[in-house]
Amino acid sequence: MNQDNFLVIMAGGGGTRFWPFSRNEYPKQFLDVLGTGKTLLQQTVDRFENICPPENIYVVTSQIYVDLVLEQLPFLTNQQILAEPSRKNTAPCIAYACNKIGVKNKKANIIVSPADHIVLDKEEFQKRITLCLNHASDNNDLITLGILPTRPDTGYGYIQFENSINEVKKVLNFTEKPTIEKANEFIASKKFVWNAGIFIWNFSTFAESFKQQMPEMALSFEKGASYYHTDQEIHFINELYEQCQSISIDYALMEKSENVKVVFGDFGWSDLGTWKSLYEASEQKDENNNICDGLVKTFDTKNSIIKTPNEKLVVVQGLDGYIVAEHGNAIMICKIDQEQMVKKFVEIAESVNKKYV
Amino acid sequence: MNQDNFLVIMAGGGGTRFWPFSRNEYPKQFLDVLGTGKTLLQQTVDRFENICPPENIYVVTSQIYVDLVLEQLPFLTNQQILAEPSRKNTAPCIAYACNKIGVKNKKANIIVSPADHIVLDKEEFQKRITLCLNHASDNNDLITLGILPTRPDTGYGYIQFENSINEVKKVLNFTEKPTIEKANEFIASKKFVWNAGIFIWNFSTFAESFKQQMPEMALSFEKGASYYHTDQEIHFINELYEQCQSISIDYALMEKSENVKVVFGDFGWSDLGTWKSLYEASEQKDENNNICDGLVKTFDTKNSIIKTPNEKLVVVQGLDGYIVAEHGNAIMICKIDQEQMVKKFVEIAESVNKKYV
Repeated sequence: MNQDNFLVIMAGGGGTRFWPFSRNEYPKQFLDVLGTGKTLLQQTVDRFENICPPENIYVVTSQIYVDLVLEQLPFLTNQQILAEPSRKNTAPCIAYACNKIGVKNKKANIIVSPADHIVLDKEEFQKRITLCLNHASDNNDLITLGILPTRPDTGYGYIQFENSINEVKKVLNFTEKPTIEKANEFIASKKFVWNAGIFIWNFSTFAESFKQQMPEMALSFEKGASYYHTDQEIHFINELYEQCQSISIDYALMEKSENVKVVFGDFGWSDLGTWKSLYEASEQKDENNNICDGLVKTFDTKNSIIKTPNEKLVVVQGLDGYIVAEHGNAIMICKIDQEQMVKKFVEIAESVNKKYV
Repeated sequence: MNQDNFLVIMAGGGGTRFWPFSRNEYPKQFLDVLGTGKTLLQQTVDRFENICPPENIYVVTSQIYVDLVLEQLPFLTNQQILAEPSRKNTAPCIAYACNKIGVKNKKANIIVSPADHIVLDKEEFQKRITLCLNHASDNNDLITLGILPTRPDTGYGYIQFENSINEVKKVLNFTEKPTIEKANEFIASKKFVWNAGIFIWNFSTFAESFKQQMPEMALSFEKGASYYHTDQEIHFINELYEQCQSISIDYALMEKSENVKVVFGDFGWSDLGTWKSLYEASEQKDENNNICDGLVKTFDTKNSIIKTPNEKLVVVQGLDGYIVAEHGNAIMICKIDQEQMVKKFVEIAESVNKKYV
């Protein structure tokens, strides 16, 4: 295993898209949403087995989730958990982690990955990551993984690439969440892939590129060099975040840089952004195409997701294409094809009482 | 108020027909199934306001429910709660209560009523009960209330009556749970009413009629005369019930006696035997014909019953004609028109673990 390989897992999100299953206090990266026995965060770590030494894995998360991270990844030291005092989107999160890693190893090859996606074909994933790491260690490129699109999804970011026989292709531009017409065009043109939000680069390339695009933010994180890996790190970061701009790495760096490359991947990826994507990603459907996670008995029920607490007996009759989800103090029953309503449900839950979100 | 009027409420049933809402430990008479703020037992007592003095109300129940009865009817003394050590159907229950009342007042006029039915028109109900009491105090008749049938229900008992201009009509025979063909015939003939299981008689008539039809059982309850209303009553009853036959009052007495009369009633009665009857009986439907009892938010949902714990937020989208019921450790989702499945669900629940029933 290459001791210069480092992994940054971004695990600070507080999404409620799987409400009531995912909650502000317990977002989806900390949940076993597929019922596999491992949470999405744990699955993310497993995915990089034999690529990154465990001591080179850094998890950036919100201060309120530090205990959850330690509980789920007990091999981590406190120094490997980067606690953000507030959510400032992905650019500060990545700048923090890369600068901290740079202090330890200037030759670091760094993978940045969300904690809440799934990959069904680990072997193929590792092949692509290894290809990216090999390229990144020898080239001053910012590499992103591109997923071959299977439908005109308007919830994803699209990457237009320059066609070439090389596996590492030049990125022409990014389009975030296009209209359905645009998405259809993109798919038809075969010149676009989805942006998986997984990045690979060497430390120096990141540091230089980031300084060029975000000079002020870059400088402020560089100033921490003498504090990282010490007791003063928390204090330094708390102060820095107070002033820090909230901005995504795509907008701050990737969309503006010239040295951005894409490597295609076809490894059963999903960002599990919606109940429907969860349904599609799951391989644990029963003979009636139901995903049942809990003590569930179904009758005349098909194409449905039923996720309920293990100790609760759930009897369901006569549903076709529904989500039934219970967690803590909330239950949701909703047609899968109406799941865009979940956002509205969360608003309503919040208006009733914050404890329901 | 006539001090000779006595009321016997039978509150010992352990039904699970409203599972998971009604449970072995908490059957439906102790639940506010209609969401009116009063349990069915409390509503039953209210129904006899100004007819029976409170000190003349006796509740027969299972020993395990004595605390529930006292909690819901705190005006009762211990002597007014008759605790059965085991379930032996209605004949022993009624024989016990009537014999105990007979010790206190030989001139008693006794009404026997289930605890888990509903009546929507209390005024009309009281008029019919008063008519029955007046007749019972002067005649040696066993009177039962007959409900004008509105549909060929195969779950009820039917009473054939002799047509006459009298309000108190002679009963020709009883038919328990007929086939649908029979039920249709009965309705068409207009010679049948439903048996509501509410009986009115004076003590002597009951005692004599019961002795005639069930001499052995009658004798064994008469033997308790010196124990009723004393500390020895419990011991006496515990011993008696060990040997006691399990038999319904209909089969033991009503179907065999010559002096059985029926008085019609049309006061919005239901035995609330099923979720559907609950749905039909409820006057608290929202603009989409839903009954929502709990912290429920509905979207595109109609003709449904949603009964869930008050503190739980329940969001329901896209249901038409369903029951959603949660109570304790169990949830049921089922089409209202498939509610005969509930019996099966209870069996399954029991096979998983008795704690779910």
